[in-house]
Amino acid sequence: MKMTNTRGTIHNTVQVHSNVRIGNNVTVGPYSIIYDNVEIGDNCFIGPYCSLGEPVAAFYENRDYENPPLVIGKDSIIRSHSVIYAGSIFGEYLQTGNRVTIREESAFGEHCSVGTLSDIQGHVEIGKYCRFHSNVHIGQKSTVRDYVWIFPYAVLTNDPHPPSNCIQGPVIDEFAVIAAGAIVLPGVFIGKDSVVGAQALVTKDVPPETVVAGVPARILCSIHDVKCREGCVEKPYPWRYTYSRGYPWSDE
Amino acid sequence: MKMTNTRGTIHNTVQVHSNVRIGNNVTVGPYSIIYDNVEIGDNCFIGPYCSLGEPVAAFYENRDYENPPLVIGKDSIIRSHSVIYAGSIFGEYLQTGNRVTIREESAFGEHCSVGTLSDIQGHVEIGKYCRFHSNVHIGQKSTVRDYVWIFPYAVLTNDPHPPSNCIQGPVIDEFAVIAAGAIVLPGVFIGKDSVVGAQALVTKDVPPETVVAGVPARILCSIHDVKCREGCVEKPYPWRYTYSRGYPWSDE
Amino acid sequence: MKMTNTRGTIHNTVQVHSNVRIGNNVTVGPYSIIYDNVEIGDNCFIGPYCSLGEPVAAFYENRDYENPPLVIGKDSIIRSHSVIYAGSIFGEYLQTGNRVTIREESAFGEHCSVGTLSDIQGHVEIGKYCRFHSNVHIGQKSTVRDYVWIFPYAVLTNDPHPPSNCIQGPVIDEFAVIAAGAIVLPGVFIGKDSVVGAQALVTKDVPPETVVAGVPARILCSIHDVKCREGCVEKPYPWRYTYSRGYPWSDE
Repeated sequence: MKMTNTRGTIHNTVQVHSNVRIGNNVTVGPYSIIYDNVEIGDNCFIGPYCSLGEPVAAFYENRDYENPPLVIGKDSIIRSHSVIYAGSIFGEYLQTGNRVTIREESAFGEHCSVGTLSDIQGHVEIGKYCRFHSNVHIGQKSTVRDYVWIFPYAVLTNDPHPPSNCIQGPVIDEFAVIAAGAIVLPGVFIGKDSVVGAQALVTKDVPPETVVAGVPARILCSIHDVKCREGCVEKPYPWRYTYSRGYPWSDE
Repeated sequence: MKMTNTRGTIHNTVQVHSNVRIGNNVTVGPYSIIYDNVEIGDNCFIGPYCSLGEPVAAFYENRDYENPPLVIGKDSIIRSHSVIYAGSIFGEYLQTGNRVTIREESAFGEHCSVGTLSDIQGHVEIGKYCRFHSNVHIGQKSTVRDYVWIFPYAVLTNDPHPPSNCIQGPVIDEFAVIAAGAIVLPGVFIGKDSVVGAQALVTKDVPPETVVAGVPARILCSIHDVKCREGCVEKPYPWRYTYSRGYPWSDE
Repeated sequence: MKMTNTRGTIHNTVQVHSNVRIGNNVTVGPYSIIYDNVEIGDNCFIGPYCSLGEPVAAFYENRDYENPPLVIGKDSIIRSHSVIYAGSIFGEYLQTGNRVTIREESAFGEHCSVGTLSDIQGHVEIGKYCRFHSNVHIGQKSTVRDYVWIFPYAVLTNDPHPPSNCIQGPVIDEFAVIAAGAIVLPGVFIGKDSVVGAQALVTKDVPPETVVAGVPARILCSIHDVKCREGCVEKPYPWRYTYSRGYPWSDE
């Protein structure tokens, strides 16, 4: 039996507010809500129970509130129970897992994926082809450059002496990898191609092509010294020479 | 264009059960469910897909089940996808992020905020003006006094040798700060104004006005010795002398 | 006043797709969706806003997609906002917390519980009577044997040098306990009856009946040497001699 879920249709339980622009061949699942000033590109799939254009904090204070625009690039898949606030822009081929939360003033490049339960706090700049696994927390003012991987329960923080108004987002340079459960402290720079080990607490800048680990994190070695114990690849890092699934260089 | 979301209305898709009391000027968004014996104070805003008064475990075992009362204080904002169980009481000006879970027998003072994805396990006492950031986990029998801050992925545990019936909640004293990813072990007391560093594992009591960090946590210094490297404030701690946004002393 | 929530009824807002088999005395709450080829055993309770049989990734690529079967054993309770993908099988007496996500190719034995916000990545084998507390993350290819406990924010990882295709799930042997915030690295074996301490990073195999802790984890002692400081039990471990709630030996 074929799947009965029809493509290219807005389910009749979807709540669509004003000034919404929906491209061609877009599917929106049952019970989703699309607030004012949302634009959804062609061929997108929006699952059930999603809120797109969720009102930002000013909505609760101001009766003259106008919802900032939200733009979702074409060919995106947003899975069920996701909440994407008004006032952000996403490049094409965005993919989210279930119950993702992405707040206002987030700018994502094309071909990004944001895993189940991830919580993007807004006011962030994310490059293209970034992949956030499940349950990643990206604090405000973070900068994540192209091709970065972040794994479950990793946290980018931004307040050097909480609570304060002294906010300094970390910067994660291209191709860097942050493993599960690592925490990056405010204002820290993670260099290009570097690898932060699982459960690390990164308290100071990490040079390019460097592996760090521990609480607090210390330099373990160059990424070029990492071996695979199983021998599946000779040199795992830089990972872009051995892993290509879904990347522009996958056909090379 | 002004936001079309109407205030002071219960959306026609909301499921309202028996003996529900809803104050003046309350908004409840689409698809929310309000179970038996829930009381919502004036001027509250309840987002879509919320369950208020979610039945507790006895519901599944007992056909004569009666839902314990849930009281939400006036002027509260509960964001979408939140689940608040029956049998709790919240002071006025509660704010929650999206998809918060708060179980039964929770007592919150006024002006608390509970961030996105936070999971309050119930049987807890929380003071006034407490602020839990995203994805905070508060185990049963925890006590959190007034003006406490808890940051993402921090966990208050309660079982000294799991699994067991030997439950001992931690106690977090006034104005204490628990940074991201810290875990507080069962029965531990965190002193007034103290600061627990990110990724710390707190295995024993922390005196007042003390900074601890590490796995296991050790005393780093007095909070009075902390400097801001950026020079944004001279002495960051006690934080109540430098940070006032939303607090009773904000006008002083 | 008695609870008005009626048992044994499918709410009229539930979306039921094709070839769904629902047993006797099953309750499905408002706004839930049951996709193609789902089978729900007798006496189950499915809360509101659940997606059962959520389509897997191939759905988005293939217009001839057929949803793999999902089987939920009898006497299960699945709480609100849970998402269970197509293509898994669960033994009887499954219990989930709210907003659980369980992906495809998951096999669970009978009497398992999966806590609030837990994220099971699919392609896993889970024994019987396993108990996952809130916010547990189980990576693909993990094996968890019978009677295992996993506590909040614990993570089982599977990629030894991420990102790669070199996936090696951990194996957690019977009766083992993994405390809050612990991370188990790929391919690691945790021995029978062993205990992994909170916030530990387990980088190598743990022998049976052993306590490990730290970052990286080191052997602390035999489980037989653990005392309860409160004196509530003389020897907390092996826990199955002192804790029986809900287990087959509870009547002994």
